[in-house]
Amino acid sequence: MKELTPKEFREMVKQKKWDKPTSGIAPGYTQANLVILPKEDAFDFLLFCQRNPKPCPLLEVTDVGDPILKTIASHADIRTDLPKYRIYQNGRFIKEVTDIVDIWRDDFVAFLIGCSFTFENALIKHGISIRHIEEQRNVPMYKTNIPCVPAGRFHGNMVVSMRPMTPKDAIKSVQITSRFPAVHGAPVHIGRPEDIGIYNLDKPDFGDPVTIKEGEVPVFWACGVTPQAVAIESNCKFMITHAPGHMFVSDLKDEFFAIL
Amino acid sequence: MKELTPKEFREMVKQKKWDKPTSGIAPGYTQANLVILPKEDAFDFLLFCQRNPKPCPLLEVTDVGDPILKTIASHADIRTDLPKYRIYQNGRFIKEVTDIVDIWRDDFVAFLIGCSFTFENALIKHGISIRHIEEQRNVPMYKTNIPCVPAGRFHGNMVVSMRPMTPKDAIKSVQITSRFPAVHGAPVHIGRPEDIGIYNLDKPDFGDPVTIKEGEVPVFWACGVTPQAVAIESNCKFMITHAPGHMFVSDLKDEFFAIL
Repeated sequence: MKELTPKEFREMVKQKKWDKPTSGIAPGYTQANLVILPKEDAFDFLLFCQRNPKPCPLLEVTDVGDPILKTIASHADIRTDLPKYRIYQNGRFIKEVTDIVDIWRDDFVAFLIGCSFTFENALIKHGISIRHIEEQRNVPMYKTNIPCVPAGRFHGNMVVSMRPMTPKDAIKSVQITSRFPAVHGAPVHIGRPEDIGIYNLDKPDFGDPVTIKEGEVPVFWACGVTPQAVAIESNCKFMITHAPGHMFVSDLKDEFFAIL
Repeated sequence: MKELTPKEFREMVKQKKWDKPTSGIAPGYTQANLVILPKEDAFDFLLFCQRNPKPCPLLEVTDVGDPILKTIASHADIRTDLPKYRIYQNGRFIKEVTDIVDIWRDDFVAFLIGCSFTFENALIKHGISIRHIEEQRNVPMYKTNIPCVPAGRFHGNMVVSMRPMTPKDAIKSVQITSRFPAVHGAPVHIGRPEDIGIYNLDKPDFGDPVTIKEGEVPVFWACGVTPQAVAIESNCKFMITHAPGHMFVSDLKDEFFAIL
């Protein structure tokens, strides 16, 4: 699987030969979170992302009703090329499906949102070990008391992901992730979790807990789960997202998103 | 005038005591281009800016119908706090006015767009001399053959600004402006103007020509005039912009927009 190009992988998915998570697929290529909304909610959601670029870094937004991507992947079909989708109605989870061909409407707009996999690859290349990858778990994610800037019906607090590391690696991580403003950028917090409303690192709101070793500090990044969580909380009449971990695999190399 | 804070300057403007350009006002504070559109065009325009972040770096987008800014300036009123506005109907320039209180509508959305003044201050601080400032002219701007990514009714080519400098300063400029992705970022082109469809540097499409000395190369940055030019060409039913040079003066220091 690791040998497949993103295009070959998406072709496999389209043919229903893969419905598992995308972690480890096409290493070095950027993966993206997905939110699909009807046009009536799309302006406010686009505005929400514009106002909150750290948790909601937009990689591509499709034309109204057009399911074909143009920027981060060539000729990819957003209705078939992700392994698994989730359907929400009135803010409630309805079901998971492996394509949305029959559900797609002429007024749908798809938002592809950056994901921390991209900067994790850069950290690893610089010799920084990522605990949840070492421990083969999902990254721990937490709801915070940091309010996002609201936009129309969309409002809520930021969700962050956490990676424990030595202070030395934390400093290096700030430098490395500052190069990637399009995929969350620099951390939003280092150290005391209670400062941002997190009271138990062992009980993440999403993902899995990880070991924090003596002398390590928790480093927190704005997380791409934020816009999904906010959209769910806002009780949109209709919304489609990727199923957790079942991301869109783009044609762009992670380094494409580095500004330096 | 140079002594006034941005807030004091905007108060003067509101009281109709200043209707001249804002160049040199409140040095060190970011100034912004303005585009106001009705809601019906706002989604496509927001999408256009999202797809073309280099020429269209959004600093703030107001809530529909709300003329008060919340992010880049505190309690500023977009209807009164710029020295001069331009009204367009069906893509044609109608008139200049010094406030838009009587014209404001409940469906208007204001877009504040970054401007190269911000990174010019950073260049000057690093000892790079800016020719058009030396020669007390407006920066030369050119239409190019570089297509923007279209969005709905909005499409057109990128407008660039040009600053001649030594190759050594050009390299330093790339480093310095890369720190400012929110205000045009790194140059889009260095050297041969014909590569991007510019055939006579002495005849800019906007602004004034400047001297290019022996051994200097032209360095081109995406220009904030692009979204205005594109919006005008797209024949929007109704649009308001700032009058050229009569920008919005924000409360944020230029350094706020540096990511490093």
